[in-house]
Amino acid sequence: MNSNVLIVGSTALDSIKTPRAENPRLLGGSASHAAVAASFFAPVKLVGVVGEDFPPRYLRFYRERGIDLTGLQFAPGKTFHWAGEYEINMNNRRTLRTELGVLADFNPQLPVSYQHAPYVLLANLAPAVQHHVLRQLRRPRFVVADTMDLWLNVARADLLKLLKHVDGFVLNDSEARQLVKEDNVVLATRRIHRLGPKYVIVKKGEHGAILSSPSGLFVCPAFPLEKVVDPTGAGDSFVGGLLGYLASKGGALETALRRGMIYGTVVASFCCEGFGLQRTARLDRRAIEQRVRQLEKLTRF
Amino acid sequence: MNSNVLIVGSTALDSIKTPRAENPRLLGGSASHAAVAASFFAPVKLVGVVGEDFPPRYLRFYRERGIDLTGLQFAPGKTFHWAGEYEINMNNRRTLRTELGVLADFNPQLPVSYQHAPYVLLANLAPAVQHHVLRQLRRPRFVVADTMDLWLNVARADLLKLLKHVDGFVLNDSEARQLVKEDNVVLATRRIHRLGPKYVIVKKGEHGAILSSPSGLFVCPAFPLEKVVDPTGAGDSFVGGLLGYLASKGGALETALRRGMIYGTVVASFCCEGFGLQRTARLDRRAIEQRVRQLEKLTRF
Repeated sequence: MNSNVLIVGSTALDSIKTPRAENPRLLGGSASHAAVAASFFAPVKLVGVVGEDFPPRYLRFYRERGIDLTGLQFAPGKTFHWAGEYEINMNNRRTLRTELGVLADFNPQLPVSYQHAPYVLLANLAPAVQHHVLRQLRRPRFVVADTMDLWLNVARADLLKLLKHVDGFVLNDSEARQLVKEDNVVLATRRIHRLGPKYVIVKKGEHGAILSSPSGLFVCPAFPLEKVVDPTGAGDSFVGGLLGYLASKGGALETALRRGMIYGTVVASFCCEGFGLQRTARLDRRAIEQRVRQLEKLTRF
Repeated sequence: MNSNVLIVGSTALDSIKTPRAENPRLLGGSASHAAVAASFFAPVKLVGVVGEDFPPRYLRFYRERGIDLTGLQFAPGKTFHWAGEYEINMNNRRTLRTELGVLADFNPQLPVSYQHAPYVLLANLAPAVQHHVLRQLRRPRFVVADTMDLWLNVARADLLKLLKHVDGFVLNDSEARQLVKEDNVVLATRRIHRLGPKYVIVKKGEHGAILSSPSGLFVCPAFPLEKVVDPTGAGDSFVGGLLGYLASKGGALETALRRGMIYGTVVASFCCEGFGLQRTARLDRRAIEQRVRQLEKLTRF
């Protein structure tokens, strides 16, 4: 069994500053990180939009990873550009510049070959656009939406509408608290279930993640890293890896979800070890399996 | 095999304010929390000092838990009193008042019956006093020291001297960063090993704990709580439960340490569910074992 994963989200150029280095116009965006992470496990169909300045080498890179680009739109104008800066502890991020470019008018149309995708990730993007994609799907098996704090502030109504129609919802702990105004993360997941999603995953960065599902909670560890070079895209890698793993396994969701989160965690940990997708690009399935075994050893009691 | 645990630390009266309630003069202090936590697993010998205002009902409570009070000093004056306030999210604590009382001149002398204790916890106390106790021990099997940020600031030299002579050292993540000026927790544990301790445990509150030992890292989960009433003493309960468990098991340290941290985590989680020692006081071994099994289920993948 190896179903494919449809991933819609932003395809971007990221300029990332950290206390140690500066890297202009890296391949970035929620869909890029998620698609590359998922591609280690299952065939990926990408939906996104890029402008005339999008470097051909990034297209080659997608193709080398076997990512189907039929759903990637090429639009006149500039690719979405994000510039940000990390503080010394790598936990606090400051956006320096956001230039939406062609993303501002992104109106994704699913190719016919995409409409029957069984596993779907609505990676971080305006909730209305995520919803627009969701409406074009024919009986998907499992749909997960990711988000970011921006949408909680400027598109809350759209997000709440979307949540009624997704199976899973992924957000970080501060977003979970903000969304339902509940400080305790366990209680917050309960309230988020009431908004629609059967599966709620709260990401806690270096502290791991929590899954809340009909069969209860799963406390997912993070991989303890000695060196974090650039955490940009770690959350997208996590959920991309998770969806890719689920698609590769099929079968009962409940059982696969826990291991899927572990695989997502491992891909995300590699993502943090290089700028943009630089470390992830050099990954292979063997290195992933090795780190999964390491994580098993690190958490066994 | 059921060796005993010697615990030295503060015995205090705690007045604790939270957004929801106020509780004056509860039984508190690092030694009280640690001793009660350890008492579920092994016989405990307490070393501490109390003043004339120490309520007899607290002495009865220690005795009911089977805690040996031969080493508890009664001094003229007032018991150490701490008053603090928690913010709404229960993570930020503010000290309102600290009255050292009889703790200011605490000069613990170990009864002969205490000097051969195999498992020793130097719970949070001035490092010079911890060291003074350590010097009176005859060939202990395993000595662990706990600390707090205050001592890093006002008694750093004493603490560094002490660390050369303990097997294990427990501190929280912000203290670990501060002690060795390293932001990455994994790298920080490496540097702390170089100060002496073979076993370093970094507590991360609601995010669990990390053990660094000769055989590598152990990532210990926290128990996800729906309601945190009062986290005072959770760290002391954690390390007390850990030492009690180790004493009850004996045998190879490396294997017992991981499970010991899980037991410590579980006792600490109960501690958070009531003010002071109120919830812990109603615990029994069966409830602890049940929550350990729950934690196993919550983390299995």
